[in-house]
Amino acid sequence: MSKEKWAIGIDLGGTKIEIALVNDKGKIKDRQRFPTDSNKGYKTVIEHTAKAIKEICQQNKNIQPKAIGIGVAGQITKDTGIIKFSPNLNWHNVKLQEILAKQTGLPVSICNDVKAAAIGEWLYGAGKGSNDMVCIFVGTGIGGSIISNGKLLDGFNNTAGEIGHITIDINGPKCHCGNKGCFEALAGGWAIQRDVEAAVKKNKTSGKILLQLAEGKIKNINAKTIAEGLKLKDTLSKQLTENFTNVLIAGSVSIVNAFGPQRIVFGGGIIEGFPGLLSAIEKGIQKNALKAASNSLKVVTAKLHNDSGVVGAAAYALRSHKKK
Amino acid sequence: MSKEKWAIGIDLGGTKIEIALVNDKGKIKDRQRFPTDSNKGYKTVIEHTAKAIKEICQQNKNIQPKAIGIGVAGQITKDTGIIKFSPNLNWHNVKLQEILAKQTGLPVSICNDVKAAAIGEWLYGAGKGSNDMVCIFVGTGIGGSIISNGKLLDGFNNTAGEIGHITIDINGPKCHCGNKGCFEALAGGWAIQRDVEAAVKKNKTSGKILLQLAEGKIKNINAKTIAEGLKLKDTLSKQLTENFTNVLIAGSVSIVNAFGPQRIVFGGGIIEGFPGLLSAIEKGIQKNALKAASNSLKVVTAKLHNDSGVVGAAAYALRSHKKK
Repeated sequence: MSKEKWAIGIDLGGTKIEIALVNDKGKIKDRQRFPTDSNKGYKTVIEHTAKAIKEICQQNKNIQPKAIGIGVAGQITKDTGIIKFSPNLNWHNVKLQEILAKQTGLPVSICNDVKAAAIGEWLYGAGKGSNDMVCIFVGTGIGGSIISNGKLLDGFNNTAGEIGHITIDINGPKCHCGNKGCFEALAGGWAIQRDVEAAVKKNKTSGKILLQLAEGKIKNINAKTIAEGLKLKDTLSKQLTENFTNVLIAGSVSIVNAFGPQRIVFGGGIIEGFPGLLSAIEKGIQKNALKAASNSLKVVTAKLHNDSGVVGAAAYALRSHKKK
Repeated sequence: MSKEKWAIGIDLGGTKIEIALVNDKGKIKDRQRFPTDSNKGYKTVIEHTAKAIKEICQQNKNIQPKAIGIGVAGQITKDTGIIKFSPNLNWHNVKLQEILAKQTGLPVSICNDVKAAAIGEWLYGAGKGSNDMVCIFVGTGIGGSIISNGKLLDGFNNTAGEIGHITIDINGPKCHCGNKGCFEALAGGWAIQRDVEAAVKKNKTSGKILLQLAEGKIKNINAKTIAEGLKLKDTLSKQLTENFTNVLIAGSVSIVNAFGPQRIVFGGGIIEGFPGLLSAIEKGIQKNALKAASNSLKVVTAKLHNDSGVVGAAAYALRSHKKK
């Protein structure tokens, strides 16, 4: 057996940065978490990150990480690792790969945060063993990543997998992206919040239970409130859940028919918050997708939860480093 | 330079079979076309095909084809080349690859007819030079095929690329596949025909010009009639064209966001029948797709027309044969 390899995996988010020392089996040995403080500017954020990496390395002197991998929410150029744009960090054209490599002396690889999480699930989580899988994360928005024939789909501009922005309802509501009726504009957390708010405003009687759960404040009602309402057998909660479940089914069917995966891994707050959701989606896919495309399909929940980002970023770094 | 290689490319359709002798530059040297006569049973169809292959080989004795490639409308198992189901031929579990290989003594590779056409366009037609492209054929139905990072996407069950069955309108009309609001159920030729028929039935006054063009027979009105109506500046024709154009834009945007191609090649009767359609689709994509995904995108029309099937099938055969 070959010697185990180690990498630094980083989940660089808008509010916090998580850094972990991860081996090539996806095992985390040590980790650090600290606030991003993106308002202090990208140079400071990168310096803090480099400092934390050095600390982790000093505290684990018997381990020599081979590379650093970072998952960032935003558009990234593939080989040069430039953050073209990250709305969460408010970064434009930041040469993260180059700067951090200089400061640490280690090779750095950067990918989209959803891709990093998908790689984590693929190699060490719920996707393990499948070469044809799609990850769908349903949180505030909907993000995804596609592995086809054992390869992560990048697309020409490194943007493939933006499944939150496939059209599900050509006559649907506006999306943040400028288009309308997108998958996430109907079933992402922000869309669910918009819909429940509108429904309660429209009819305070049917919205009574949800309003009570939110202590009378409409602005506090969101997907979590609906999940609580479901437990109380609230009719409006049932109806809203049925609506976004049908959208999640339609989006999943599109993905199954277009990509023909063997496995779909679902993760994210909405999936975790609604216990019956996964089986409803699975039933819906089996009913509505093309039989030839769906008859070997397994629908499963993500396993790594918050660790998928750092574990996947580390794996991405080791794979990128190996290629060179 | 290496010696040129030849293969037999076959487009096996429900009404006709086209056989061509094609080299590894996509050049057709000789061809035959004859009716499928699928009602005589699969054995007869395969025997006729084998006979035609032998004739073509005898008439071109200086050329030794290395392999046979066939494009068939239907579901095909990848390595064994069994036609699991072909609605056009009414074939179930026909071991086409095995039987034809025995009868001809040549290695046989089989793929879906849309994939064969896409391979043709990719290697020798409008997709030449791009490693990230999508072919969208809008005819009676909508078919597609995806090339990502220089590889044809197969999917786990060899079904990837069924983009005619991505959902565009979750509240839309029934599709032949059993689902509703599919891309082809809104913008395929059969859906356009359904919509124009309904519109003319509903309002004979606004449908007057279309009815005249169809010599008074509602059943004869179809997409071609709408194209003629457009030339006469008919209002209903304009409106119907706008409707299906918007659907073609929405479907293309979904594909651009999900796959991130560098090029989209559009082909098929609907695309060829409406001269302004391509540029309207291109404008719509640039307006509605994610900028990062679409800013390098080129939208082009298929070049090989009816030859894409045989040329692509031959290329598929040479590539499959090389791998073994």
